[in-house]
Amino acid sequence: MENNLFVIFGATGNLTYKKLLPALSRLLENNSISRKTKVICIGRKEFDTASYIEDAIEKSKDVENWDILKKSINYYKMDIKSILDYFILKKSIEENCGPYRSNAVFYLAVGPELFPVVARGISQAGLVGKGDSKGKVVIEKPFGEDLVSAREYNEMVGKYFDENQIFRIDHYLGKEMIQNILVVRFANRIFEEIWDKRGIKSVTILAKETEGVMSRGGYYDKSGALRDMVQNHLMQMFSLIAMDSLESFEPDVVRKNKVKAIERLKLDGGKDNLVIGQYKEYKEAKGVHPQSMTETFVFLKAKVDSKRWEGVPFYFMTGKRLDEKRSEIIVEFKDSTCRPKEWSGEGIESNKLIIKVAPEDGITFQMNIKTPGLSFDVNPATLDYCHKCKAIGNLPEAYEKLILDIIDGDSTLFPRWDEIEYSWRFIDQVKDVIGDAKPFEYRGIDDLVEMTKFED
Amino acid sequence: MENNLFVIFGATGNLTYKKLLPALSRLLENNSISRKTKVICIGRKEFDTASYIEDAIEKSKDVENWDILKKSINYYKMDIKSILDYFILKKSIEENCGPYRSNAVFYLAVGPELFPVVARGISQAGLVGKGDSKGKVVIEKPFGEDLVSAREYNEMVGKYFDENQIFRIDHYLGKEMIQNILVVRFANRIFEEIWDKRGIKSVTILAKETEGVMSRGGYYDKSGALRDMVQNHLMQMFSLIAMDSLESFEPDVVRKNKVKAIERLKLDGGKDNLVIGQYKEYKEAKGVHPQSMTETFVFLKAKVDSKRWEGVPFYFMTGKRLDEKRSEIIVEFKDSTCRPKEWSGEGIESNKLIIKVAPEDGITFQMNIKTPGLSFDVNPATLDYCHKCKAIGNLPEAYEKLILDIIDGDSTLFPRWDEIEYSWRFIDQVKDVIGDAKPFEYRGIDDLVEMTKFED
Repeated sequence: MENNLFVIFGATGNLTYKKLLPALSRLLENNSISRKTKVICIGRKEFDTASYIEDAIEKSKDVENWDILKKSINYYKMDIKSILDYFILKKSIEENCGPYRSNAVFYLAVGPELFPVVARGISQAGLVGKGDSKGKVVIEKPFGEDLVSAREYNEMVGKYFDENQIFRIDHYLGKEMIQNILVVRFANRIFEEIWDKRGIKSVTILAKETEGVMSRGGYYDKSGALRDMVQNHLMQMFSLIAMDSLESFEPDVVRKNKVKAIERLKLDGGKDNLVIGQYKEYKEAKGVHPQSMTETFVFLKAKVDSKRWEGVPFYFMTGKRLDEKRSEIIVEFKDSTCRPKEWSGEGIESNKLIIKVAPEDGITFQMNIKTPGLSFDVNPATLDYCHKCKAIGNLPEAYEKLILDIIDGDSTLFPRWDEIEYSWRFIDQVKDVIGDAKPFEYRGIDDLVEMTKFED
Repeated sequence: MENNLFVIFGATGNLTYKKLLPALSRLLENNSISRKTKVICIGRKEFDTASYIEDAIEKSKDVENWDILKKSINYYKMDIKSILDYFILKKSIEENCGPYRSNAVFYLAVGPELFPVVARGISQAGLVGKGDSKGKVVIEKPFGEDLVSAREYNEMVGKYFDENQIFRIDHYLGKEMIQNILVVRFANRIFEEIWDKRGIKSVTILAKETEGVMSRGGYYDKSGALRDMVQNHLMQMFSLIAMDSLESFEPDVVRKNKVKAIERLKLDGGKDNLVIGQYKEYKEAKGVHPQSMTETFVFLKAKVDSKRWEGVPFYFMTGKRLDEKRSEIIVEFKDSTCRPKEWSGEGIESNKLIIKVAPEDGITFQMNIKTPGLSFDVNPATLDYCHKCKAIGNLPEAYEKLILDIIDGDSTLFPRWDEIEYSWRFIDQVKDVIGDAKPFEYRGIDDLVEMTKFED
């Protein structure tokens, strides 16, 4: 697409420096997007383009090729709270980039409190108007903090833009192995055929972190693990695993199916199948309330109210200060009911498919094999696929893929408004069950192991 | 088992030096069999035990620990065509090993022309008598050369011994990955569930060799690839893949099921689905007839007349002077019929399970993965399991496993008389179709590629 316009609000923020500029730089370098793309970096700081680039070179360590990127960048200073400034912005764009045809992406890399004002500005100045098929608005989480606020939020953006103009970022969806879920499920008949209660015993969706809250205490303390991780990243992984078969990959077919899965997700068994924890030093972190009840760990058993998943437990687990940084999906297959009698008892493990999302990208298939040697013992063996090893050069970063899709107008990997709402409905249900229960204090994963072994 | 007696007829032959002594040596060293086991090596050559061991040390390169093995060995010279000598042998055993309780293995490592005479000798001298549960007789292929001669052969050995005293060696069955077929099939529900016409598109059983006939021209020219490889090794692999589910691993349950599969195997489509070849320099080999019509290559399409395998082609392929030494089983799974429409056409490969028998021992599972990068292309990726890498020390050799099972009296890995007969019936059927057709002359695999692509 020629003459793209990529406008970033919040161009002096971390997200821009750490994710957006490196991604744009790679896309330009690979010619995935036109080198004529203009990147308008908007901030309130006193920069001109040259000094902004100087600042960015210092802060944006992952940009590999500044020579190409810097030709695209223009810094633009404005007060994003002033409606007038959006009209001036539009005029400036027209002067610098030719007649304004609103073939533009507006990326709101600003705090949530500024979303409404920027949205209104873009809309009222006619930068992106309803019904304008080429204008796109990109927003980052949080999309509300419960069902009620999420609805309000959706109504607000819906007032200014059409749903197909809105791209909600969940960067997990840009990860290679998350996209791979669709391929694993729908291009491999061996899994496709048994992707339901007949074939699957349980699904575990996990995202473990070793770090604490670090400098994010102020934000995190209001959020917690459920809102920060489960509502978005884990929910997205869940929906791709649990959704029904697809007749096509058209964005709204994919999203409709995801929504249906999320809509049917229910906590299973209430408090008994729910563990919340808070790591020991959490309250000492900057910005955290000294009596904070915020959970930094959550493990829960859920179910999906559908014929497909009747009786299949879905486990969600995420937390900070755990033993390892690891995000993956473990699909455990059912055991045979008609084995040779010598193998009818315990001791033979289930087949497992593990989709490794981070830090490795890969797939592990666990199957049973004869133990090497003279005996006829059976033991599990793992067959591995390393995604990175198959890449020519580096794997694309999540933001690289997502920005490309935004520019191309492909919304498959962006949650629709109703995905967000149903996710929050689930989180609200969990919050209700938690009530004012105090999170369990843990020092590390060892304190949690026993509590996170639910019976199927 | 204490005080085993292991008697080898043909102790100065290649099989003894290259396979039996190394296997016995390892079994003794690992204490898999008692160190009190007596190995009586019988030949017609003028050796005493010391000079035999000297000779064996030179010729039996794979024996790792002579210190242990040589304590077990006794050389015994006799004329195996003289009935009297078997009575003397028995007396000698009793004198040297205490009261003879026929807890003994008699291994006939001799040419097929000598089988009847040795069998009669062992039987008539009472070394192994019918109804004697501890006596065992081991025989090597060939077990006949067509259905008629195989029946005669089975009748002959049946005259002297009970079926459960007879151990027919097909060394393929001692290979780790052949035993692994049972584990792969019956300890992995994911495969077990689709191990039939609903899930499997085709099965290919192949054993490719790079070598020519070498010094075996005289034998091979009377045999050919069908008799030398298909009737035994390939047929055994086939039967383990194609047999029905097992209620148990009891030897006769396994063997009954294998027989049923072999019984139902039929050539599919006659001459059109059958290729025989002879490599270019074959007729120049020593012992080969200058106008030889013997096939050194065969590729055929077969079917199994059963509900389970209705419409599933089984391909057999074996030959000499090909591109690589490789023996493996390729199970190709069916493709989905209800994919997302973007993937409904060609271009997505089937899932495959490859059981690698030799020279590697391992398993490859081929599945489809998203091509790394910004596109949503699908490509096959292989997930590998290396059996050798999981072994502590070396993998056991086929003969090691088989000899241990013989001593332990476990007949699971030894073909029963009817397996042999039904295999020959299949070979006879193929031979009938070939008639006096001349094998296609090939220089290597490239000449055969086009001819071995049958439509499903």
